[in-house]
Amino acid sequence: MLVCRESKNGRTIIKVGNVEFGGSTLVVIAGPCAVESEEQILTAALAVREAGGNVLRGGAYKPGTSPYPFQGLKEEGLKYLNEAGRIVELPIVTEVINEKTLGYALKYVDIVQIGARNMQNFSLLKAVGQANIPVILKRGYSATINEWLNAAEYIMAEGNDKVIFCERGISSFETATRYTLDISAVPVIKSKSHLPIIVDPSCSSCVNKYIIPLAKAAVAAGADGIMVEMHPKLQDALSDGMQSLDRSQFLELCNQLMAIEKVTKTFC
Amino acid sequence: MLVCRESKNGRTIIKVGNVEFGGSTLVVIAGPCAVESEEQILTAALAVREAGGNVLRGGAYKPGTSPYPFQGLKEEGLKYLNEAGRIVELPIVTEVINEKTLGYALKYVDIVQIGARNMQNFSLLKAVGQANIPVILKRGYSATINEWLNAAEYIMAEGNDKVIFCERGISSFETATRYTLDISAVPVIKSKSHLPIIVDPSCSSCVNKYIIPLAKAAVAAGADGIMVEMHPKLQDALSDGMQSLDRSQFLELCNQLMAIEKVTKTFC
Amino acid sequence: MLVCRESKNGRTIIKVGNVEFGGSTLVVIAGPCAVESEEQILTAALAVREAGGNVLRGGAYKPGTSPYPFQGLKEEGLKYLNEAGRIVELPIVTEVINEKTLGYALKYVDIVQIGARNMQNFSLLKAVGQANIPVILKRGYSATINEWLNAAEYIMAEGNDKVIFCERGISSFETATRYTLDISAVPVIKSKSHLPIIVDPSCSSCVNKYIIPLAKAAVAAGADGIMVEMHPKLQDALSDGMQSLDRSQFLELCNQLMAIEKVTKTFC
Amino acid sequence: MLVCRESKNGRTIIKVGNVEFGGSTLVVIAGPCAVESEEQILTAALAVREAGGNVLRGGAYKPGTSPYPFQGLKEEGLKYLNEAGRIVELPIVTEVINEKTLGYALKYVDIVQIGARNMQNFSLLKAVGQANIPVILKRGYSATINEWLNAAEYIMAEGNDKVIFCERGISSFETATRYTLDISAVPVIKSKSHLPIIVDPSCSSCVNKYIIPLAKAAVAAGADGIMVEMHPKLQDALSDGMQSLDRSQFLELCNQLMAIEKVTKTFC
Repeated sequence: MLVCRESKNGRTIIKVGNVEFGGSTLVVIAGPCAVESEEQILTAALAVREAGGNVLRGGAYKPGTSPYPFQGLKEEGLKYLNEAGRIVELPIVTEVINEKTLGYALKYVDIVQIGARNMQNFSLLKAVGQANIPVILKRGYSATINEWLNAAEYIMAEGNDKVIFCERGISSFETATRYTLDISAVPVIKSKSHLPIIVDPSCSSCVNKYIIPLAKAAVAAGADGIMVEMHPKLQDALSDGMQSLDRSQFLELCNQLMAIEKVTKTFC
Repeated sequence: MLVCRESKNGRTIIKVGNVEFGGSTLVVIAGPCAVESEEQILTAALAVREAGGNVLRGGAYKPGTSPYPFQGLKEEGLKYLNEAGRIVELPIVTEVINEKTLGYALKYVDIVQIGARNMQNFSLLKAVGQANIPVILKRGYSATINEWLNAAEYIMAEGNDKVIFCERGISSFETATRYTLDISAVPVIKSKSHLPIIVDPSCSSCVNKYIIPLAKAAVAAGADGIMVEMHPKLQDALSDGMQSLDRSQFLELCNQLMAIEKVTKTFC
Repeated sequence: MLVCRESKNGRTIIKVGNVEFGGSTLVVIAGPCAVESEEQILTAALAVREAGGNVLRGGAYKPGTSPYPFQGLKEEGLKYLNEAGRIVELPIVTEVINEKTLGYALKYVDIVQIGARNMQNFSLLKAVGQANIPVILKRGYSATINEWLNAAEYIMAEGNDKVIFCERGISSFETATRYTLDISAVPVIKSKSHLPIIVDPSCSSCVNKYIIPLAKAAVAAGADGIMVEMHPKLQDALSDGMQSLDRSQFLELCNQLMAIEKVTKTFC
Repeated sequence: MLVCRESKNGRTIIKVGNVEFGGSTLVVIAGPCAVESEEQILTAALAVREAGGNVLRGGAYKPGTSPYPFQGLKEEGLKYLNEAGRIVELPIVTEVINEKTLGYALKYVDIVQIGARNMQNFSLLKAVGQANIPVILKRGYSATINEWLNAAEYIMAEGNDKVIFCERGISSFETATRYTLDISAVPVIKSKSHLPIIVDPSCSSCVNKYIIPLAKAAVAAGADGIMVEMHPKLQDALSDGMQSLDRSQFLELCNQLMAIEKVTKTFC
């Protein structure tokens, strides 16, 4: 398989602007779950840059479990996100949910994300494989690592080799956290694939106070980056407030991660 | 929610030709995993009708875990399936994996199926919701029953109320079967929703010899129907041979189910 | 291994009084979770016999998740249970939790039960293996079938071959039921071992209205028996009221099971 | 509950010789899965001390899934362990599996361990609760954190407040690792209880090359210590060789943990 370590000499490094996934420096992706307004995403972008974050995230198409809640600002949201990214000079990432939203995203963003629920939406994987854009592939919450590697293979088989794995928690019987962060996925992916892997501790725990310890654990285990939700005004968030950091928590996180990064090395 | 028992007087009965899902008679859906040739699907169709099966199934678009194995005959397969269905005078069902394949399916089949991996592909759910065709909604293999009900709500919210749930096994630590058939889903769905529920014991166990006992269990628990894989020449199957019945096993299954059906009543 | 089908010609039938586990007739074990008083267990015993139940159950040592709730009447409870069993002329079963309670149980009961939490308490397994008494071995709620077979092997290796498996639900992410009844365990055990298997649908669902459909499913799948909680005065139960049947529900269950039993055969 | 943070001012620190669990310094427990000979445990003990480990471990009673493999040197093993501990001047820990082995352990060791399979062996919990010795309580591999807290409560309710939690992986559908290390358990326990928590990355992954990254993750997440298997002659190990470190890997682990410890603080 193309995703396997054996198929390549050395590790894949994916460059996006000045950022390198899989290189020697940790990547911190942050921003709100959903783009809610021009002002909100710009405020978030400034906070991300100020704390030392590397990539700005924001959702424009929010597929929720139920059909009725807020589902994103759609193309309007992508425009706001794009504008904020240019102002703070950070690459931006957003989730795509079908071929149509992929088409919009290609106009406005630097990296696309495939969400956990679409990890085995093979039509979407093929479409992303035919586009020339880095892609963050979240792990389905009951996908085995082997199925996840195969999902990446769908993308690579179509010609796109810029795939970044993102562990975000799996289903288990434990209910103290929303999902169970499978920290072992970091060394397992590093052992089996040449592609980079990042970790999203916001989705997995869904509990604000567990995000920082889990992010630190991910870096210590060898992750190439972290993706967190950060909302500049947490109390006003339209979605996912519980699992977001506020500005000061995010600053604290960045400082702690930088300290750990200095003393830890990627698993090899 | 529209799917809940409270939102409707009585239970939903979905008629397709002479078949009723959710009525007083058990529905048996059978056929090969994949349509492989004109001859294969016709042979299968004759075997299904002969044993007393009610609906013919056959896959034309086969989303596999890996991108490389056989992925179906596509539109050609739908034509063969349609032809076989007309000859044996049985309704036919096939899986759709995106809006494009839904478009083809609407031309050729009576019922569409959404596979487990697409249960939270919300774009596809909305598209199917806008079509006027019965839909079998398989449970995602790590979806909670609550998430499954919400997936059906996506379809109903767009105007299509002909949704049939299909339990097909969930992820667990047990490895003696490929997935763990959640038999409790039958009474739970009957208790929470007015929609019919069927069970697929082929996918869940992936072991030929467990299919008949599991199918019988499903009927005894109150399922409105059974969907099984049956291949007329099991040794030649291009996919999923392990989890298929052959002709004589399928005949045995139908006879045993009819006996159980007489002495059991749907949970109410 | 001694538990495997290959190690023996034919299936094991375990006789207790007039009851046969693994024979041609279904065994129905019923009674309250805990023996609460002399009157309560006698009333329950009469209800069990009247409805056609075959074995009386009642707990005297109740290991609860928390140390603080009611933990059983201990030896006094065993005396009441023994007395009730003699009056209604039914064999009795109770749970043992260590060597000391096993010693008491051997004086008063016909069958001992090892609970799910003790399935890998190897000291207890060995002690039971050295006693000459039939034992119901509940599946640990995260034990694989392979681990369960090995637990039975601990008992058989010490010389006691009267082991009855009891499936009672496993841990999973689904929360609509307390545990997920692994119905596939019935055909899997029948395929791998010569020993009988029964199913406990009370523990697994913990929801009164799902018990009857799950019990029927178990019998249709080939189980040799059913173990249910039945409390003569459900509203007064000191423990586990939610997962118990009342007298009229238990009568209904027995009638439905007898009807299914006639048309279904044990998996072979 | 006595285990909850609310029941106490500040955190519990458990002193054993010069070692403090829950204090400001990380505790590293290491040694072979099983004591195999006087020479083996002494060699291991010297390697543990040399690398900077704080506590020596070694099993004398090895409860295996199957009854047939090597099950430990029993009291003889405890004597060798005790002797090795005195020579290297390190506290020692061993697993107890019933009241009888607890009796022996009290004579020879400084800390007793309750294994995952006995986490809800309430008789054993009560017996340990009545002894005056620190106890490492491993998490049952399908126990929720809430059940784990309650198991500790059984010990504390009998008067022993020297309980150290040990996360060692839970059951899930993922098979790349033997168990899924629930790293979130570290911040969750720190948030809910005043008791210390350590992590065992050997049991959870069962893969040699994942042990170091997982140990580092645990420390970064705020664990008070690490318990690893280390065998001085890995190729000769009678049990669990796959999940053990050799001497040079253990030295590497200790060096890396000391570096992380300096830049990370316990979650509070």
